[in-house]
Amino acid sequence: MSAGTCTDDAVARAGLTAIAMPGDPLMRTLLEHHPPELIWSALRAGSPLLSTADDPAKAARLRRWQAKAKEVDTDVLLTLAAEAGIRLVVPSDPEWPSQLESLGPTRPCALWVRGAHDLRNACLRSVAVVGARAATAYGLHVAGELSHTLSERGWSVVSGGAYGIDGAAHRGALAGSCATVVVLACGLDVGYPRGHDRLFTDIAERGVLVSEHPPGAVPTRKAFLVRNRIIAALTPGTVVVEAGTRSGAINTATHARDLLRVLMAVPGPVTSALSAGCHRLLRDWQAVCVTDAHDIIEQVGHIGADLRPDDAPLLEHDDLDATARTLVAALSTTEEAGAVAVASATGLDLDAVLRGLGLLAAAGHVERVGAGWRVRSRKHRGSQGRDVR
Amino acid sequence: MSAGTCTDDAVARAGLTAIAMPGDPLMRTLLEHHPPELIWSALRAGSPLLSTADDPAKAARLRRWQAKAKEVDTDVLLTLAAEAGIRLVVPSDPEWPSQLESLGPTRPCALWVRGAHDLRNACLRSVAVVGARAATAYGLHVAGELSHTLSERGWSVVSGGAYGIDGAAHRGALAGSCATVVVLACGLDVGYPRGHDRLFTDIAERGVLVSEHPPGAVPTRKAFLVRNRIIAALTPGTVVVEAGTRSGAINTATHARDLLRVLMAVPGPVTSALSAGCHRLLRDWQAVCVTDAHDIIEQVGHIGADLRPDDAPLLEHDDLDATARTLVAALSTTEEAGAVAVASATGLDLDAVLRGLGLLAAAGHVERVGAGWRVRSRKHRGSQGRDVR
Repeated sequence: MSAGTCTDDAVARAGLTAIAMPGDPLMRTLLEHHPPELIWSALRAGSPLLSTADDPAKAARLRRWQAKAKEVDTDVLLTLAAEAGIRLVVPSDPEWPSQLESLGPTRPCALWVRGAHDLRNACLRSVAVVGARAATAYGLHVAGELSHTLSERGWSVVSGGAYGIDGAAHRGALAGSCATVVVLACGLDVGYPRGHDRLFTDIAERGVLVSEHPPGAVPTRKAFLVRNRIIAALTPGTVVVEAGTRSGAINTATHARDLLRVLMAVPGPVTSALSAGCHRLLRDWQAVCVTDAHDIIEQVGHIGADLRPDDAPLLEHDDLDATARTLVAALSTTEEAGAVAVASATGLDLDAVLRGLGLLAAAGHVERVGAGWRVRSRKHRGSQGRDVR
Repeated sequence: MSAGTCTDDAVARAGLTAIAMPGDPLMRTLLEHHPPELIWSALRAGSPLLSTADDPAKAARLRRWQAKAKEVDTDVLLTLAAEAGIRLVVPSDPEWPSQLESLGPTRPCALWVRGAHDLRNACLRSVAVVGARAATAYGLHVAGELSHTLSERGWSVVSGGAYGIDGAAHRGALAGSCATVVVLACGLDVGYPRGHDRLFTDIAERGVLVSEHPPGAVPTRKAFLVRNRIIAALTPGTVVVEAGTRSGAINTATHARDLLRVLMAVPGPVTSALSAGCHRLLRDWQAVCVTDAHDIIEQVGHIGADLRPDDAPLLEHDDLDATARTLVAALSTTEEAGAVAVASATGLDLDAVLRGLGLLAAAGHVERVGAGWRVRSRKHRGSQGRDVR
């Protein structure tokens, strides 16, 4: 949303992302007791917020935030963001991924988002694929292959933006047919590391970039660790492809386990230090041993499916926009239809139909079958879902 | 034992191994209801054994056994075996590994044994290390390393005699300080495959060869699968190093699982078909992911230890021979003594002391500490046992 159309709640949340680190425990306490507008206006006015702010450290932090809040012009922030193609997504927005609520008090206050895809839709059927920066050729190969097959089978890949496994996962997913989601620990215009500029541009065109940090924010070591909880929380499952025994990927695995998401690890040679973290997850954390995309889909593919009758659509279509609803209505769960037939049935032009079907497939609503398309039903999940093997 | 010193029970069991396949269900039924001497004499005399042998297939098999039994001269069999250095071990012998009783009705009738070590002692602290014949360089390397470290830490390796992982496991163990045990699916004088002749000779000198088959018996495909239950039953745990999804090693794993032994698998590259079986064991069979000898000892090292006070000897010494008991008596569980001191204290010559201590260490009774030796106690298991990591 641009600055002009923002609610007071959104403007306040934008401001709060500019003054406090994500996951800050004091800000968390404030947000548990007060609406964001009140916190933001109190900080800007310098009025007291915590009646019990007798802790000197807390009082000092509040003073720093008050000073920063007076310097932040949310209008300018939101306008510059909009000019860079970055939108703010807050919990009341349809694009908000409601699975982040499982983070409880550490859920993000707001997310900065860039890219053609809808974040919520992109994450409905998604898997986190994470691992070491200093990956081996083996790890890069496996991350790329896994992610490509996941993407071809209608599953989005979610990862960080680092060199190594993260990059290989996104590149593999981009070579497939589904959205890829990168969660950064800095402003989306900063896009660290710079060597991934081209990759981030590709993801903006065919996926989503996400950050808790406002445009201009530079990455810090702590920010990477805090960021990892978002990667784990966005997805029903996390796959660690390669990791040393102490690494960011193991940190993401911790979050996935704490959030009761499916934790998976790819085995590798026992002679490789970069598989040692994965083997520890398998031995001590009861991570599931996965060797290919089929194994992964078998683990995460059942979510939500057990509640639906066989021929019913797999996903609800209520939140789709008008064009997408028109397209879904023109398809059935049992017989496939070609894009030309859909264009003729709906009166939409062929380009719009192809683009719309691609987006719907990425979000898991429809699937390609031979040369045609159909609405994904529970029964037909077999071709992409739990019963694959 | 030689033919001359055999009990009637042992002679009868020797004869039975020469006429029926190990694990034969009809022989199993006979042994459940009659002592071996009775079965053997009845078969040789052609007298009826099964009052209800109305099943034509069973009756035919009994007739075949009767014909074979008349041809077998157990005296010649035991004499030829003794000349080839092969002894018969039956359940009433001190050398019988009583853990085989857990096989229930499929326990072997008798074992043919060759080698310097006592089979029962060698298997007290042992691990089965098994895997594919057509192993990769990775699998051979890992099998050798694991087995060498296990052997150095006082654990015997038990495996088959095949090329690939089996051979690498034995070679690694022979390079260590502990016995290695090979279970063959043919006569110990046949020693299939012939390319392992030299390996089997080395094992005879510094370990044990075991078979259910009498001297002269040639291997059959079925015999390998039946043999695998012995490997699993002799040991508290089985490690699969490399295996396709359908392989003899997976068959051994099945036996280990059915016998409630610890089942372990070594992970490998997901791109390797020869690690696919291991990964399936990890994912679907809840095998423990092990990456080195420490991991393995951690899994199998607790057996029997929880029942003993810290300073008590880890193993009972009652079954040891006179020299071994003298050596154990000259050592303590708390302070180490050099071999020269032991020789002087016991009046034995240094060669006998060194040889005796080596055998005692192989069987887990004593351990090397620096330049000296001590009796292994529960407390000191930490240096070799469960608390290693």
